[in-house]
Order: sequence, then structure tokens, then C-alpha cells
Amino acid sequence: MTTTTAELETLAAAAAAAAPIWRGSDAATRASWLRAAADALDAHIDELVVIADEETRLGETRLRGEVGRTTGQLRLFATVVEEGSYLELTVDDADPSATPPRPELRRMLTGVGPVAVFSASNFPFAFSVAGGDTASALAAGNPVIVKAHSGHPRLSERTATIVAEALVAAGAPEGSLALVEGREAGNALVQHPVIQAAGFTGSLGGGRALFDLASGRPDPIPFYGELGSVNPVVITPTAIAARGDALAQGLVGSFTLGVGQFCTKPGVVFIPAGAGFEDLVAGFATGSAGGPLLTDRITAAFPEGIEHLEADPSVSVVAQGLPVEAGAARPVVLSTDAAAVAARPETLLEECFGPVTLLVRYSSDEELLTALRAVPGSLTGTLHSEPGDDVADVLAVLERKVGRVLFAGWPTGVAVTWSQHHGGPWPATTSLHTSVGATAIRRFLRPVTFQDAPESLLPDVLRDASLAALPHRRNGVLQVP
Amino acid sequence: MTTTTAELETLAAAAAAAAPIWRGSDAATRASWLRAAADALDAHIDELVVIADEETRLGETRLRGEVGRTTGQLRLFATVVEEGSYLELTVDDADPSATPPRPELRRMLTGVGPVAVFSASNFPFAFSVAGGDTASALAAGNPVIVKAHSGHPRLSERTATIVAEALVAAGAPEGSLALVEGREAGNALVQHPVIQAAGFTGSLGGGRALFDLASGRPDPIPFYGELGSVNPVVITPTAIAARGDALAQGLVGSFTLGVGQFCTKPGVVFIPAGAGFEDLVAGFATGSAGGPLLTDRITAAFPEGIEHLEADPSVSVVAQGLPVEAGAARPVVLSTDAAAVAARPETLLEECFGPVTLLVRYSSDEELLTALRAVPGSLTGTLHSEPGDDVADVLAVLERKVGRVLFAGWPTGVAVTWSQHHGGPWPATTSLHTSVGATAIRRFLRPVTFQDAPESLLPDVLRDASLAALPHRRNGVLQVP
Repeated sequence: MTTTTAELETLAAAAAAAAPIWRGSDAATRASWLRAAADALDAHIDELVVIADEETRLGETRLRGEVGRTTGQLRLFATVVEEGSYLELTVDDADPSATPPRPELRRMLTGVGPVAVFSASNFPFAFSVAGGDTASALAAGNPVIVKAHSGHPRLSERTATIVAEALVAAGAPEGSLALVEGREAGNALVQHPVIQAAGFTGSLGGGRALFDLASGRPDPIPFYGELGSVNPVVITPTAIAARGDALAQGLVGSFTLGVGQFCTKPGVVFIPAGAGFEDLVAGFATGSAGGPLLTDRITAAFPEGIEHLEADPSVSVVAQGLPVEAGAARPVVLSTDAAAVAARPETLLEECFGPVTLLVRYSSDEELLTALRAVPGSLTGTLHSEPGDDVADVLAVLERKVGRVLFAGWPTGVAVTWSQHHGGPWPATTSLHTSVGATAIRRFLRPVTFQDAPESLLPDVLRDASLAALPHRRNGVLQVP
Repeated sequence: MTTTTAELETLAAAAAAAAPIWRGSDAATRASWLRAAADALDAHIDELVVIADEETRLGETRLRGEVGRTTGQLRLFATVVEEGSYLELTVDDADPSATPPRPELRRMLTGVGPVAVFSASNFPFAFSVAGGDTASALAAGNPVIVKAHSGHPRLSERTATIVAEALVAAGAPEGSLALVEGREAGNALVQHPVIQAAGFTGSLGGGRALFDLASGRPDPIPFYGELGSVNPVVITPTAIAARGDALAQGLVGSFTLGVGQFCTKPGVVFIPAGAGFEDLVAGFATGSAGGPLLTDRITAAFPEGIEHLEADPSVSVVAQGLPVEAGAARPVVLSTDAAAVAARPETLLEECFGPVTLLVRYSSDEELLTALRAVPGSLTGTLHSEPGDDVADVLAVLERKVGRVLFAGWPTGVAVTWSQHHGGPWPATTSLHTSVGATAIRRFLRPVTFQDAPESLLPDVLRDASLAALPHRRNGVLQVP
């Protein structure tokens, strides 16, 4: 199925018509719409998980969990809308005695307009039709048009139908959520005059192409893309001495989780040379299970990525996981050294989707830091150290490379909370914003300030009576009700 | 003077070396650096104003006022840094009982890295070397490299020297503020790997070219440009009946202020047909004074813009201001009708720099709304109405077109406060952010989240002891000390 130009025009017109209604909806109403969408997904979980498993092979347990995360996101954003800080309500009272005299100014954030969401292959629920981008765009007060991922078309259609119907049944306007299919329709979507912002999760190549289309419009729009990440991990000698076994087991668990298809998979692990860590990892990796990847095309591409790495003379195979049937990906641990990584980062630090990780031996702090500086921008960076280790330099580099710095943990698993940041320097993301967590809503809002407005002409939330019940700043002072 | 490639490399390396020091500076230190820059400008105001007047012809009164605004901006951002909300400190405590268990997450904003600032012709102080973009970038914890405007090279060099020396004298690192000159150097600057964001105030053509360079980098960076604005004004029949004289006088004062060279100049004014407002405006406009524009080139281009408008068959001249000498711009009021504007918006609604405004007659609400919808994105939109007027539809259109909606005032004059928003839909600005006011700092910050960090490895501001003294959110609850 491919959405035609005429169909896109119809959907865009409906989104444009729905936009003022979403934007003007009060907090309680908008929150109820988000919760209605969550409730509808919960009510259809059995049916949806069956379709999702047929299309993505991710398995029932993972997929049920992902539906929970998806409905949790919708409900979190309902809370965010009700809490009201996202409006950034700010009032400066008039000051006729100032030079020049100051008018009254009242500022708020408001929905940017209809949003395009490009869904991900590897999160058929949580970053697809009703996923985090959609939830945050709706919460900001914007209708959404989703470009379905070609990897799960039936699930996309069914999810869109369920959510769109639930929204309308809850009182939201027609045109609140729509779906388009096909690459051409996606390209047309991001360039459509009605669309005011876009969210994307996917490959560097695909994301860059859409980013260029969004930036090349006569009226460029923000394109919030998450494009790829190698998620560096640094392990110190003392950490291996203290808990080498646990670290090796944790690493194998993390890089094989979901058959290595998480955007936060630890793809490159800096380890001290000569500490025996490769053997420890091999011990756990040889017992690890692979499986089919999301699609036949992705599964077929997996060995090519490995071969590309193995072609480098510095790379050797540390271990392979349990044998798999044809059409499945077998876990692989590779190793190289820091000097090779520093010399050939383009080859050795390219993201490789699937259950593979690259151990990088370092022999000195200087070698480690040089190689670490060659790592491309990533979503996460992890440090395993012990008290007493001097890690200041490593942390200083990591903090500039990534959006989330983890200590003594593994990057797979992304809590959806107020503090989460899922973003990082290019190519991890295309912007200074997050796609996971409460502040993801900021991507789909624009400020507007009202100067000397009669109270009757102000938006409700900017009137004094509303301010009393909402977090706001008045004359520079932050106030919490 | 043109900055060479080698010189740019030296400046970029110095900015890169200064970046961690700015980023790591505590609030009191960073605020003291900003205030030192302001104090130095104040101390050199006599010298600077003489140079500025020679290069821009804006006159001593205006230029002294602009220095005050510039130092006021630097001091406002010192306050913003001390207040601490801009850090968006957010903590979610660990929840081992959650499914899956939640780690502790602590989020903050931190400086994005060295910033490029492209200074404006029409604000030689307030949006040039030490202007709003520079102040907000420094406040965010970033060194700045300014591209000098070719219209005031000596002032740029002198300002940069004074501020850079004052920063170093106050303890800031070398490389905190630098200047480059020449178009080629500007193009190289926005593409330089060290530069992580750019601020720009200028023309649509120049801004678009730089936006395209920033977006086209191998690693695109945010480009915050303010490119042009016609600043629509809508006047209702009842407003003219109630205070037509005052409105005509106010309009003439606003569009001729600073010889019509403000980015918020009211360039298009929707007026009811047959209400006699053109005659009222003519009465004040014929006595209005013009003058030389910023440069000879801009002055020479002014009549061309007028001729371009007059070539439209719908346009007539309502009034001209007092005669001027050769090499100066004479104020002009033109008029047309709403149907012509709706039919030929590209011709009639192009921004025209200098003391000219276009009155647009409307005969019905429908005509007004149709023409208003054709107005390009603008910084401001102004409504002059009376209680009882039904202005809901007009306001709904204005609020989507502009970043600041004014009531019963004039858009020239931009208060630098917490609530100000100076931005709007393309082409007014290239982003969803402001270039004036406290929240301009957000443009030059990026989030980073720390997961399960030992307290000793956290940045100071994220430790519990610091949080107690700063606005922050903990487990979803906003807290003000």
C-alpha cells in the first residue's frame, strides 16, 4: 500500500483542521484524549501483539512489555500536560517607570502545528504509530501524521485505526491521527506545507535524507531525528579486578538483548589490555542465543556488517554464540586495539545493527582517551570504574560525546521519566532535544508572547486566575502553586 | 580586513580550549564575567558611541541608549545564570520496585560548545559583537566567535578588544570572545567543526545561505537566524473612530523610528476602507523626518524597494515626509487594497527596509482575514481594537503568524525581560526560539543525563547539596528554594 498524493492532501487538510482544536484544548481534555488512546491499546493488546510478532519476530514477552511502555508514555504525557510546567508560563508586569517604559508581557508555549512522525523498525509500538514521538506531539497540542514503517505495515494500520477511533470516541476531532505508507509519501509528508515539525527514528542514511528535505523546504521545519549510536563503554582495570565476571555477563546480556536491535546496544567496549576480560566475555558469549532479526533483509545484512569489521587486519573473533538456524543472527564478539580504532574510526566505529560488539583493548590512559575521542556522537556512554580510579578525563570526553552517562550499569533499557535524555551529538540525534522522557514535548511547541493584552483576549492559561493554579514565573520569580 | 583560514584555525582552537572552562564555571564566576563585560562597555561608552555614529549614522542619543540595552542584556543574563532555572535540573530517584526497575537519573543542561554569532547592521551594539546572541551564548557557558558586520568594522574591532580584555581581566580564559571579518570567513566559521551553534540577525538571503551551510555540514548544527519581518498591524473601524488621530500619529512615529530600520517596524497596516485613516496618516507623515540609512548601499537601495511596490497597479502614494538631502531616505506611506495583497503577496508583502509602510484597505472581515493569511511569518503582530469588537478570528490568524501579539501599542521597542519572545514562523526566524529575552539562553544549551552516578562524579549543580539552593524538579515535582 502506498499513500497517493491525493490521499496525503486529504489527510493534511484534516490535520490542519484538527490543529486549532488540539491547540485550544484544555489540560483535562487533552489528558483525557491521551489516556483514551492508552486505554484502547491496552484493550487490544492481545490482537496487536499477535500481529506485531508475525511482523517483527520480537516475541510475545518483549512485545507485551513494549505495549506497556507505550501506554505508559501516553499516560506520562497526560500527567505532563496536567502539571503545566511545559507551558513555560511567564509574566512580566508593566513598569511605566522603566526607561523605556515596559509593557506587560505574558509568554507561553503552544502547539507548533501538525507533526510528521516516522516510525521505527525496532520499536513497533513504543516508537511507531502511537509511540513516544506521537505521544509528545499530541501532548503538545498537535495532530500527527505517521509514516508507517515498512517492517510492520499491518500493525501500523491496525494501531492507527484503534488509536484514531479511540481519540474521536473521546471527543477529539477527526484528523487527530493519520497514517501514510510508502517512501514517496514519507518524502512528500516532511515537505508538506501543513507539517510544522517531524520526529524520526531510524538509520543514518534515511534520517539524513529526510533531514535534508526538511531543511531544504522554502520554509524549513525542525527535524528531530535519532539516527544511530555505538554507545561506548569504558571499563577500568580495577573494575575488572573487582567484578570481571559480572561485567562480562552483563555485557553479553546487554548486547544480545532483543537480538542486539536496541538503539542503546553497547557496540564498542574499551577494556584494559592483558586483564583477561576477553576470555571472561567469551565464556558467557559462547552460551548466548541469537535469533532472527526484525526482517529478512536486516538478517541478511548482519553477516555483511561483521565481515566488514573482520576485514580490518586488527580485528579478531573473540567468541560466537550458540549456533542458529538459517535466517537468524548468531551473536559475535570481536576485538581490536585502541590504536586501530584511533587510526580507522570510520571502519571500526560504524554502527552494526544486531548481536555484535567490539572489544577495544587499551594499554594506557592516553591510548584510551585518543580512541574515545574518535567515537562518534552517541545516545549513551557507560563507565565501569571503582572508587579511587581517576576517571575525570574519561568522563570529560564521554559527557561531550553522549546524552546519557551511565555508571556501573548497561545502556539498554531507557526509563521513561522526567529526567531521561535520549539524544546526543550528531549522528545520535539531529537536535539538542530528547525523544524519550517528559521533555520530549518541547520539540513540538513554539513560544508566543502577548503584550498589553486585555484579559478577555488572553488565552485561558495566561489569565491571572489560571496562573494561580499553574507553575509560572512572574517578574523573574518562579512560582509553584 | 579579512580573516584568513589560518587565523580562523587559531581562533577556533582557542575557543575550543576555552569551552571546558566556560562550561565548568560556577554561577557566581560566570555571572561576574558577564558583568565585567558590561562594566567595560559602560566605561568606554563615549569612545564607542563616536565610532558607532561615524559608521552607522544612527545618532548619539539612539546609540547611547543602545549601549545601555547591551549592558542591560549582559547583566540580565548574569541574573539568569545565578537564578539557575536555565539548567533545568531534574532528578528521578531510583525505584527498584518498578517494572523494569528504575535507575536514578539526574538531568541538566550544559553549554553546547563554541558559538558563532553573526552580527546585525541595524544594532551595532545590542545585536553585534557583545549583543544578545553573544550574551546568551556566554551565559550558557560557551565561548563566542563573532562575524563582524561589514557596516561597522571599526566598532566591531574596538568592542571585541574591550570585551575580550575585560573577560580575561576578570579571570575568563583567552579565547572567550574573538572576531572574524569577511564573508568567506563567515562561511568558514559556520562550517567549522569546533562551532556547535550559530546565531544570526540579518537579511533573508544572507541568513538562508548560512542556514543552508549549517544544515549541510557533515554534522549539522542549529542555526538560530532572524531573517526578516513585515510586522502586520490590524486596525478596526471602531478603533479609528475612538482614537484615529492617536493611531495615525503612533503609526508614523513607529515606522519612521530609527529611520525605519528596526526589525519590528510596522510594514503593513490593515485599515478599514472609507474610514478616513489614510488622510489622518498623511497629516502626520508629511511632517515626519527621514535621514541617511545605515550605509550608502542601503540608502541607495531604498528607492528601489519603493519603486518595486509602486509598480503594482493597486499601489498609490498616500504621503511623503519632509524633503531630505541627497543620500538620505524620505519617509513614504503607500496604500493598496486587501484583494491585491491576497492576489500578489510576494510583491506587496516583501520586507522593505527603511521608513516606508503600506496601508492595506479592507472592506469586510472576510477580505481582511484572506489578506492576513497571506502575510509571511513575522516577529510581531499588532491589533488595535475596542472592547466589543469581535476579533477572535483575527487573533487566531495573528497568533499563528507571529511570535509576539501586541494590543493597542506599536511593535518597535523590544523589552529585554523574562517573558519576551522575539521570533516567529519562517522567515521571521529559522527556529522555535527567541533571540531576545531570558529564554534566548536555551539555544546554546544541550541536555545531559547522569544515570546512577556516584555523587563524587556528578557535576556540582546536580549534587543534592546544590539542588537544595536551586530550582529543580524531583520525582516530577517542581521545587523552588
